[in-house]
Amino acid sequence: MSEYIEHDKNRISVGIVAKQFYSFAEPPDEMVLESGAKLGPVTLAYETCGALNSDKSNVILILHALSGDSHVAGYYKEDDEKPGWWDVMVGPGKGIDTNRYFVICSNILGSCMGSSGPCTINPKTVLAYGLDFPVVTIGDMVKAQKALLDHLGIRKLLAVVGGSIGGMQVLEWCVRYPEMVSAAIPLATTVKHSALAIAFNEVARQAIMADPKWNHGDYYGGPKPDLGLAVARMIGHITYLSDESMRLKFGRRLQDKSDFSFNFNADFQVESYLRYQGKKFVDRFDANSFLYITKASDYYDLEKQHGEGSAFKAFAKTQAKFLVISFTSDWLYPTYQSRAIVQALKKNGRDVSFCEIEAEWGHDAFLLPNERLSALIRGFLERVFHESRK
Amino acid sequence: MSEYIEHDKNRISVGIVAKQFYSFAEPPDEMVLESGAKLGPVTLAYETCGALNSDKSNVILILHALSGDSHVAGYYKEDDEKPGWWDVMVGPGKGIDTNRYFVICSNILGSCMGSSGPCTINPKTVLAYGLDFPVVTIGDMVKAQKALLDHLGIRKLLAVVGGSIGGMQVLEWCVRYPEMVSAAIPLATTVKHSALAIAFNEVARQAIMADPKWNHGDYYGGPKPDLGLAVARMIGHITYLSDESMRLKFGRRLQDKSDFSFNFNADFQVESYLRYQGKKFVDRFDANSFLYITKASDYYDLEKQHGEGSAFKAFAKTQAKFLVISFTSDWLYPTYQSRAIVQALKKNGRDVSFCEIEAEWGHDAFLLPNERLSALIRGFLERVFHESRK
Repeated sequence: MSEYIEHDKNRISVGIVAKQFYSFAEPPDEMVLESGAKLGPVTLAYETCGALNSDKSNVILILHALSGDSHVAGYYKEDDEKPGWWDVMVGPGKGIDTNRYFVICSNILGSCMGSSGPCTINPKTVLAYGLDFPVVTIGDMVKAQKALLDHLGIRKLLAVVGGSIGGMQVLEWCVRYPEMVSAAIPLATTVKHSALAIAFNEVARQAIMADPKWNHGDYYGGPKPDLGLAVARMIGHITYLSDESMRLKFGRRLQDKSDFSFNFNADFQVESYLRYQGKKFVDRFDANSFLYITKASDYYDLEKQHGEGSAFKAFAKTQAKFLVISFTSDWLYPTYQSRAIVQALKKNGRDVSFCEIEAEWGHDAFLLPNERLSALIRGFLERVFHESRK
Repeated sequence: MSEYIEHDKNRISVGIVAKQFYSFAEPPDEMVLESGAKLGPVTLAYETCGALNSDKSNVILILHALSGDSHVAGYYKEDDEKPGWWDVMVGPGKGIDTNRYFVICSNILGSCMGSSGPCTINPKTVLAYGLDFPVVTIGDMVKAQKALLDHLGIRKLLAVVGGSIGGMQVLEWCVRYPEMVSAAIPLATTVKHSALAIAFNEVARQAIMADPKWNHGDYYGGPKPDLGLAVARMIGHITYLSDESMRLKFGRRLQDKSDFSFNFNADFQVESYLRYQGKKFVDRFDANSFLYITKASDYYDLEKQHGEGSAFKAFAKTQAKFLVISFTSDWLYPTYQSRAIVQALKKNGRDVSFCEIEAEWGHDAFLLPNERLSALIRGFLERVFHESRK
């Protein structure tokens, strides 16, 4: 996700939140992964906001994308500069109204934001896993989230909501635990990565693995592959924007100069922006987690698992009502991929609404303030909440 | 350009060609570059095919893109596996018919294919230039080509033809030496790089510069920044294709396996393809040349030099007839950028034809066999050749 979103510290938010942790699958009862490998113990970092109602019918699970975390809204401390990553959507009176709903957001398996991943300690070696961490899938991430919800005593989700890789988890939740999900909002996502999306991820992974400091994933305690990870992040940032959004945001404007430098420093604002985003990312993200999460997203393929075209049975058992949302300028998961989700849902007789939102900000659009998007989500949630209580 | 084009060794070609060299601008008469820096001596590698007619009225100058060279058509030796990079277009009876026209193709300044560039010897130090090579522009490349034509006694060009960065040189030729150019065919190009195109180039450059073996450009005689250059090339290859072409060419097919590896090897064919293209490229191309040529293309901006919008005067003095060609699936230089060229030409009262060719192969389409493209170019050249002899 981009980080140029400007937040107003004075506006309404859920206030102070705390990161929590849940560990399970203690050996010898490890979690069995899709690959067949076992992992345990498994820790998930998570946060909640809003209040759980008495019949536990107001739970919304929010699922994050590649570089996100459990910190979906609010602040950890009074003087935090930035709120959670979807504070524009989640809070009192917002699209996902924390006055009405109880929100849970869990950091995904494989990440580096508090959950088990390659940078956490392998109990067998008492060292960071590195590449000994098993390759996990979107299904594994969802299975771990289910364990967390069991622990929290949540048996029913009013809605699962998420964009991008978070949207894949939304779809997986509906398919894997159909009886638990009343409504689903997959944003800017797909049932399977296109060759183009795989290509971008692969080149980003190659950039990391080309950095000698990556050292086959074994760099914890030593110098990190910051240069490789920065390049990987820059590639990502290009895919999150669009031709149009870059033209509007940067055009050919020069950065702090009136003419070309005639050297290899950054001349253009877009170059400066990318360099800055790359540099900033390495302070907060782990290169191996980048490898694992992008691989999980490349592997995700509801058609491979459940049949494609007219045989598309992935959604046959789902019970959720769907609101599928795409953005006109998203070229990582273009609208035709959301339409494919909608068609597959309709073939299976599901209750599905679809909206393509006019937005010039590319794939990132779902993270940005957008009153139309907020209103759409607010209205859909009101309807399903009302219907679920009939 | 891509390298998956399959060539038929038995088909018609211009036959055996030889790379030639021309050196000029011997000190103290160095070439003055756009930056103000001086360069000399300057060497250009070039090749010719077809025969110059008696009044020298059948000369076509072909201008190559980023990774091209002077070897536009034919073979160096009988047992060469591959012909020149545009053999599908240039040869007897082809779109650019060497039975009728005398073709010249010069390697660009800054390249590593025989012309002066960062990997050639700096006479002052008797070592490779590295980053001491001055940053050159598209204008500098064209100015050097003009010196070559003077040397060859060519005063008039029937046509200048080129795609991508070669197309920028086409436009620059028409603007800089209007009296010399009768016709121009810019393919899949632009008057200025978009922020998106700059972004891709910048990330590719960062990948090279992140490789410790790059060593600030000083690696000649030591290990080369192959890993960084390979990543840069992979980024390029994504931009040369398109969502559609990658879906058709690769989809989600696995490479030599029936299921996922659950590790970080290449699972998908598109990953294998990119890794292969990256690896192959480093054997034939110089990382510093990649930096210099991409920078030249980012700097190119006819609007900055000549005014934009209704004040667009770049083409005011051009005398050439234009055939502007774009490709539907090219998202590096999308059709709207070719339309902008056409509009600017029309504003200046030029004779311009425009064709957007339906093609699923993205930016690379201009290099691939395409009978419609060949027929279009053949017909246009016949017309201008006929008119030039009236």
